[in-house]
Amino acid sequence: MNPDIRRERENASFNPEILTNTLDGGAEKTRRRREIESLVIGDPDFQHEDLNFLSRSERYDAAVQKSAQMILKIREYGISDPEEIYAYKSCVHRGRPEPLDLHLGMFLPTLLNQSSPAQLDAFFMPAWNLEIIGTYAQTEMGHGTHIRGLETTATYDPSTQEFVLNSPTISSIKWWPGGLGKTSNHAIVLAQLYTQGKCHGLHAFITPIRCMKTHMPLPGVVVGDIGPKFGFDEVDNGYLKLENVRIPRENMLMKYAKVEPDGSYVKPPSDKLTYGTMVFIRSMIVGESARALSKSCTIAIRYSAVRHQSELRQGEPEPQILDYQTQQYKLFPLLATAYAFHFVGQYMSKTYHRITGDINQGDFSGLPELHALSAGLKAFTTWVANAGIEVCRMSCGGHGYSRCSSLPDIYVTFTPTCTYEGENTVMMLQTARFLLKSYKQARAGQQLTGIVSYLNEPQTRIQPHSVSSRPTVVNINDLASLVEAYKYRAAKLVEMAAKNLQVELQHSKSNEDAWNNSSIDLVRASDAHCHYVVVKLFAAKLSEIGDTAVHSVLSTLALLYALHGVALNSGDFLQAGLLTVPQLAQISQRLKDLLSEIRPNAVALVDAFDYRDEMLNSALGRYDGNVYEHMFEWAKRSPLNHTEVHESHHKYLKPLQSKL
Amino acid sequence: MNPDIRRERENASFNPEILTNTLDGGAEKTRRRREIESLVIGDPDFQHEDLNFLSRSERYDAAVQKSAQMILKIREYGISDPEEIYAYKSCVHRGRPEPLDLHLGMFLPTLLNQSSPAQLDAFFMPAWNLEIIGTYAQTEMGHGTHIRGLETTATYDPSTQEFVLNSPTISSIKWWPGGLGKTSNHAIVLAQLYTQGKCHGLHAFITPIRCMKTHMPLPGVVVGDIGPKFGFDEVDNGYLKLENVRIPRENMLMKYAKVEPDGSYVKPPSDKLTYGTMVFIRSMIVGESARALSKSCTIAIRYSAVRHQSELRQGEPEPQILDYQTQQYKLFPLLATAYAFHFVGQYMSKTYHRITGDINQGDFSGLPELHALSAGLKAFTTWVANAGIEVCRMSCGGHGYSRCSSLPDIYVTFTPTCTYEGENTVMMLQTARFLLKSYKQARAGQQLTGIVSYLNEPQTRIQPHSVSSRPTVVNINDLASLVEAYKYRAAKLVEMAAKNLQVELQHSKSNEDAWNNSSIDLVRASDAHCHYVVVKLFAAKLSEIGDTAVHSVLSTLALLYALHGVALNSGDFLQAGLLTVPQLAQISQRLKDLLSEIRPNAVALVDAFDYRDEMLNSALGRYDGNVYEHMFEWAKRSPLNHTEVHESHHKYLKPLQSKL
Repeated sequence: MNPDIRRERENASFNPEILTNTLDGGAEKTRRRREIESLVIGDPDFQHEDLNFLSRSERYDAAVQKSAQMILKIREYGISDPEEIYAYKSCVHRGRPEPLDLHLGMFLPTLLNQSSPAQLDAFFMPAWNLEIIGTYAQTEMGHGTHIRGLETTATYDPSTQEFVLNSPTISSIKWWPGGLGKTSNHAIVLAQLYTQGKCHGLHAFITPIRCMKTHMPLPGVVVGDIGPKFGFDEVDNGYLKLENVRIPRENMLMKYAKVEPDGSYVKPPSDKLTYGTMVFIRSMIVGESARALSKSCTIAIRYSAVRHQSELRQGEPEPQILDYQTQQYKLFPLLATAYAFHFVGQYMSKTYHRITGDINQGDFSGLPELHALSAGLKAFTTWVANAGIEVCRMSCGGHGYSRCSSLPDIYVTFTPTCTYEGENTVMMLQTARFLLKSYKQARAGQQLTGIVSYLNEPQTRIQPHSVSSRPTVVNINDLASLVEAYKYRAAKLVEMAAKNLQVELQHSKSNEDAWNNSSIDLVRASDAHCHYVVVKLFAAKLSEIGDTAVHSVLSTLALLYALHGVALNSGDFLQAGLLTVPQLAQISQRLKDLLSEIRPNAVALVDAFDYRDEMLNSALGRYDGNVYEHMFEWAKRSPLNHTEVHESHHKYLKPLQSKL
Repeated sequence: MNPDIRRERENASFNPEILTNTLDGGAEKTRRRREIESLVIGDPDFQHEDLNFLSRSERYDAAVQKSAQMILKIREYGISDPEEIYAYKSCVHRGRPEPLDLHLGMFLPTLLNQSSPAQLDAFFMPAWNLEIIGTYAQTEMGHGTHIRGLETTATYDPSTQEFVLNSPTISSIKWWPGGLGKTSNHAIVLAQLYTQGKCHGLHAFITPIRCMKTHMPLPGVVVGDIGPKFGFDEVDNGYLKLENVRIPRENMLMKYAKVEPDGSYVKPPSDKLTYGTMVFIRSMIVGESARALSKSCTIAIRYSAVRHQSELRQGEPEPQILDYQTQQYKLFPLLATAYAFHFVGQYMSKTYHRITGDINQGDFSGLPELHALSAGLKAFTTWVANAGIEVCRMSCGGHGYSRCSSLPDIYVTFTPTCTYEGENTVMMLQTARFLLKSYKQARAGQQLTGIVSYLNEPQTRIQPHSVSSRPTVVNINDLASLVEAYKYRAAKLVEMAAKNLQVELQHSKSNEDAWNNSSIDLVRASDAHCHYVVVKLFAAKLSEIGDTAVHSVLSTLALLYALHGVALNSGDFLQAGLLTVPQLAQISQRLKDLLSEIRPNAVALVDAFDYRDEMLNSALGRYDGNVYEHMFEWAKRSPLNHTEVHESHHKYLKPLQSKL
């Protein structure tokens, strides 16, 4: 082991294992997660060449091979708990998406939840056994967020009892679904249903797209891969153009809405039935933000502990770059953020299960808040993590640009979370809609409950000019006081957005115009609300920590997280009268002190995330700190080094010499 | 042409051609640039498959082919003006780096500037004729920014009159130089010179690394490609390990320092002689920031004009996404920034040439300021552009992730500018060192000149408690007043950094520790200084614009740039007493008005950047706005679509079915 990184571990003030257990949700969960990881990492069937050295077609090939093995083995081992399946899958694909993701995560669940009993009989077992491999084809080339705008049509023909599916325009071509390009032989196609001359809106149709025997596209089906992307090399995101493709009436998913043989349409009992999946996936993405950022911090902080550069004191050896204040200021707030997001992810998961339980009991009352919370926090955490990964990468100097650092891969794998499952700005505006509705209810005298209950409090309906006369409430050394400050800031920005919207309503042609003309303020209010929730949940988590040493280091991180956010948004806090100018200078100084406090524990804090080297796959982030040796070994295996002389030398450069 | 984008152009209030001429530096320059671009774009020798569909080895191959052609043709056409060579090269490689960059940009110039006459005779013509292909090998695996830490040694052996070159440790392996891996047969190696038992520090040695006939590595030379990176697929960044490699005494570059045959060392007359190149490259990077950001804005704004999504008003057609206030708020400040950086780039280029002229007259007085300015502005503009490219990409929704948008390529090609030619944080600290020195001089009564002259003004040495009593100076509708506000903010932050450093000096073990413990404040001061310079230069540019319509639209952009910066850093302006809380609300409103003012000119403003479709290579950013058709055509050509059925289906998925 590199002596620098060994010394870092010796100097830590707490036992990382205890913190690992906290992150996993208990020692037993840590044990079981490690057991599953060992199953994969020790398995010769999952060994393969470094993906960075392969072409895209080879990467897709390797991913299909591993996915096929994975399905066999998960069933062989009898792993059935969803969290354990997730752990196994993440380990097989090292956190990357894979070609069967949509089959396993969308096609099978949608069949289960939206099929009639007859459809379940017909489709589920073939799909379970991968004779049917399916995907979920919703997004079109010209239509994403606004699903009512989708153009694909399914027109019922009672004479043959079939639906005729069409892509009437180029913008209606299905575009982006994972596994659609090459892997799937079926797709659940979202299309506008027409029957008896009337459009009944979007419905889902099980559509065969490739021959079950030859895997060739069926007549009328134009299907393929949408081409290379920023990352996601293992996935065949695809396009699908349907030209008078006929499918039996029985292929419309008919658990709720129905089309009778004669073409009469039967409405579904409720239109909120697919709400849950979306909320679930968005809640999961919060956890992804935590993981992507904690991996990046692990790599950057370990590397900063073994990298030496420049001189702090003349004549002395080059210091570890982790000793530079600017390096600490880049990385430690992100480390604190990674912890914050882990705890928010745990909360979201718990809340989702609680509210799902309520819904199963017929109580839907928690759904709007969960929906608003998952939308906003999905956007808030992915934006922060997205930018944070790049800060980590660039904090590693030149080597952060090498694929051997793994940081470029973490970024390109993660960044789509800002767009998929609800574009982030749209998500923020959905949360804003909930906040404004709640604000109005509070003003109308209703007593709000849950996370927005702060909008009840009369002092939060601040009058612009009364602020400065209110005594400053913030104690910058007290986390509880900072949570209050974040709360008031959120309340203030919600109120400002509401008032601006009110003014716009008086001038605008329509409610929609007024909303659009206030949307900068609305996004800002949502952002402040989410920030408050994160600080609050981080603070709340501290009370669950029994170990004194762990409690102490997490408290320091939480304070750093809160104060760093205040410093970054100091204008808001000054504007709301929550801070004074002299306090800002105190915060700057306090932040520096906190960086120094965290410094000796930084490596132990990333060790506690407990990513095995095989999971990180980063020469810079190795546990043993032996960075340079492994970079050199990796580089030697690069495809350009398979021959000493590249053929381009003989083809172009030699001949050039004689012409000059 | 897409009717939406045609309408945008019809509604513009100014003639983009006039603005294009302003950006190029005159109508004649625009004409000549276009002439050169046409030479390349019409040339069948430069046609090739979309690079996104090729493997890295194929991309390298294609780049070598084009570079060889390029050299032939530039000489054939007699293009000799550096700007014109740059334009031709950019067009051939579409802004991407290429394998001969280091040969042309570093090896040949270093030979010219640092060779003795005898060395010029021996090496220059073979290098000019590409018999010698060279690179510049400075960075080592363990050493980047701090070049004194480089470990490679060159030990003089008087018995054979040779230098013996060695890489004594793994961290001393040369790492990163472009063209080193496969292309070059020589390298200028930076090494610690040892002669007569003494180390004389870094010197440059022309080192043959591959056989001129067979191109095989020479004995003792371990050379290869460092492996795949985040972008830069066309370049063979390489490693070089030297094991007792002997080169003649005549291969040390001896224009200045010398080693005599007996081993006596002759000092160079000055140690500032390589200063200029570094400053020149950093100044050029400011222009790169402008180009990368303006390309990204062109793509995102054109796409936003043809993309329709959601509904603003019920029942009406989906609006152009450029009509959403949140979309405008993402893109228009970046558009303004791209213009600002173009003008700063022009200024840097002019200043560089002016000061180079002075230096040739023996006047070195302008160098420290230029050095500080180029360091800070390199960091400031690359950080902003780097984040801005990603905002542009994500503003295009899902399609921004497709390689056909070109946005991922713009990002990965640009992002290394944050690290190479001086890591950005280090650059900011170099500028801070100049600012603090200037501040001290001003306090000591010296009269400062140039860009830091604001540190002279007594009112900028603000007393913390006197601020609030000073009347607010800012008129938020007046650009000149905002320039003043930025100036005061910079002065305030320089003073705060100086005071904090003073306090640290009283507590720290050494000056270096005090500097490190103040470095967050120092970076902040540099950042504010650079921000001031950019706003000031943008404002100054307006006075050169004769055309009323162009003047008007650029003034709006300049105001947007300035106010957006105030809003983002409102804490600083409030803290310095330059703004009041009510003014902040006015700024929010004014920003919205400015977005509306810019909206009708947005497409014309990106048209004025005048990127031909062949240069942008983006399906989303096409001039004609026919986005979807071209995405579909592009996707069909993707390598995964070369066969209807991917072989992995038969290899893994078919066999799996029988096992389940």
